[in-house]
Amino acid sequence: MTLPVFDLPQIAAVASKPLIFSAVREALIAHAEGQTQVPPPLHLEFPDADGDCHVKAGHVAGAPYFTVKVAAGFYRNAERGLPTNSGLVLVLDAQTGVPAAILADEGWLTAWRTAAAGALITHALTPHDADEVGILGSGLQARLQVQWLGALRPLRQVRVWSRRSEAARRLCEELIDGGVDAAPATIEQAASMPCVITATPSTRPLAAAAAFVGAKHVTGIGTDLPGKAELPPQLFAAAALVATDDHAQCLDHGDFGNAVRAGAVDANADTAVGAVLRDGIDPDTAGLTIADLTGVGATDAAVAMAVYRATQ
Amino acid sequence: MTLPVFDLPQIAAVASKPLIFSAVREALIAHAEGQTQVPPPLHLEFPDADGDCHVKAGHVAGAPYFTVKVAAGFYRNAERGLPTNSGLVLVLDAQTGVPAAILADEGWLTAWRTAAAGALITHALTPHDADEVGILGSGLQARLQVQWLGALRPLRQVRVWSRRSEAARRLCEELIDGGVDAAPATIEQAASMPCVITATPSTRPLAAAAAFVGAKHVTGIGTDLPGKAELPPQLFAAAALVATDDHAQCLDHGDFGNAVRAGAVDANADTAVGAVLRDGIDPDTAGLTIADLTGVGATDAAVAMAVYRATQ
Repeated sequence: MTLPVFDLPQIAAVASKPLIFSAVREALIAHAEGQTQVPPPLHLEFPDADGDCHVKAGHVAGAPYFTVKVAAGFYRNAERGLPTNSGLVLVLDAQTGVPAAILADEGWLTAWRTAAAGALITHALTPHDADEVGILGSGLQARLQVQWLGALRPLRQVRVWSRRSEAARRLCEELIDGGVDAAPATIEQAASMPCVITATPSTRPLAAAAAFVGAKHVTGIGTDLPGKAELPPQLFAAAALVATDDHAQCLDHGDFGNAVRAGAVDANADTAVGAVLRDGIDPDTAGLTIADLTGVGATDAAVAMAVYRATQ
Repeated sequence: MTLPVFDLPQIAAVASKPLIFSAVREALIAHAEGQTQVPPPLHLEFPDADGDCHVKAGHVAGAPYFTVKVAAGFYRNAERGLPTNSGLVLVLDAQTGVPAAILADEGWLTAWRTAAAGALITHALTPHDADEVGILGSGLQARLQVQWLGALRPLRQVRVWSRRSEAARRLCEELIDGGVDAAPATIEQAASMPCVITATPSTRPLAAAAAFVGAKHVTGIGTDLPGKAELPPQLFAAAALVATDDHAQCLDHGDFGNAVRAGAVDANADTAVGAVLRDGIDPDTAGLTIADLTGVGATDAAVAMAVYRATQ
């Protein structure tokens, strides 16, 4: 068996934003239509090394390839001068099961598909003339959410709040280097922008619903695992539309589920992100909208397949 | 990231029987002692292509590597001139999560660890002077079980029964070529040998308990998935010792579980295969013994790690 291994530079050379936006959009729509296969992930824990490993597989019905993604997070790696996250994606032929390639992406494909999913739904649900964005969080996804949203619409002003003020300052410098008017802000300033994106590892709501007083749209992308929480349940009570990337998953561990358990919103009150992307919605008249993203395995499959095919 | 890919010839060059026996033995003992991490596998189904894919991960406590194994079975591949089974094993560093290597083993490491586990427990539980073996089944594992057992003790006579008489004849020719006195037999002849090994995809018991009249030890390795069955429940009622490779798994879908559900044996009547291998037992005075093997993920991890280290 000859098994080509593509390294990060080779992957980055073909993984353009348009390619990833297109793959993620199609996968989210297919997922909303029940045309994806996403089995429950497999987990390993390495308490001695403060590490864990998650294996996710996915297939979009009819696609010529399926994927198995291995993502590890080892939280003492920095002490060794290694990145915390590592991983790769295995691409297999969906007609024969034969492995086609390894994408040794070091976790970047996941970062990009998360950025793309967030940017797509934020763009779809934010009023056309809203160009001021508040960011809660200062990590990699906080940066990518701004950069990928900026590829879909002009951003006039970005205000960044983080528990780690130094990290917020550094993120603003990076964004300014990229031509964005960015500045650190208080949580009240950031949360009252017309468009708010939360990308933190928080385990409790970042602010009360009243803090989001100026928000027309809020996207939360931090609740990727049980126990996480970013948005206050009462914000869901005030929303005219709640979009979830996976109903069951968001109910289980998204902020939507937190709001349902708090009695703030009905368990069937959500709309699929993929349906919003497919059908469109007028964000100027929609009222307050929320997108709750927990990460859909089918987007991994679609992005890896698109990248692999682009290398051929 | 540089990620070495070892192909089957490179793997076969280092995967000696002693190396695999040693790794499997240690993994089974560690598993019996609760020193392994084997999360529930992940499954994908491809009904249009008559295929499926299973992903299994494993780690033996304290081992420097863990593994993620991808195994696909696509049952129309023969029409395309491709093998039905394919797969690979990813070896990762258990201290950092960083991928270390891909073993593109095309499913052979699984075949060898299954052969080794069967041979180890068959050898441990079969009386010392018993050198006549009955094989029910004629596939790859039927052949490997004989060949690997033959590496642990001399086999004077092998009698093979299969639903597919032509396949039984071919298997005997292969075994004879390897120096074994093998011949096709009726199921009554094969099942009444002192040592009996079943390796079939059967979904119902292959014969009544009375057919095993001359058996001192029986190893069943075919019940790898729910719905499978090879050994009659009443045989378990007659056994002095039942060894299972994984208590919960054998209870769920092994012949041991079938026997428990039939009321033939108590749900706690089994002994761990790893405990038998660790502590030893006198097979000459043990009475009728049965080994029920469903496949333990920790043996995949141990074998892949041993092979990877042997390449370094």
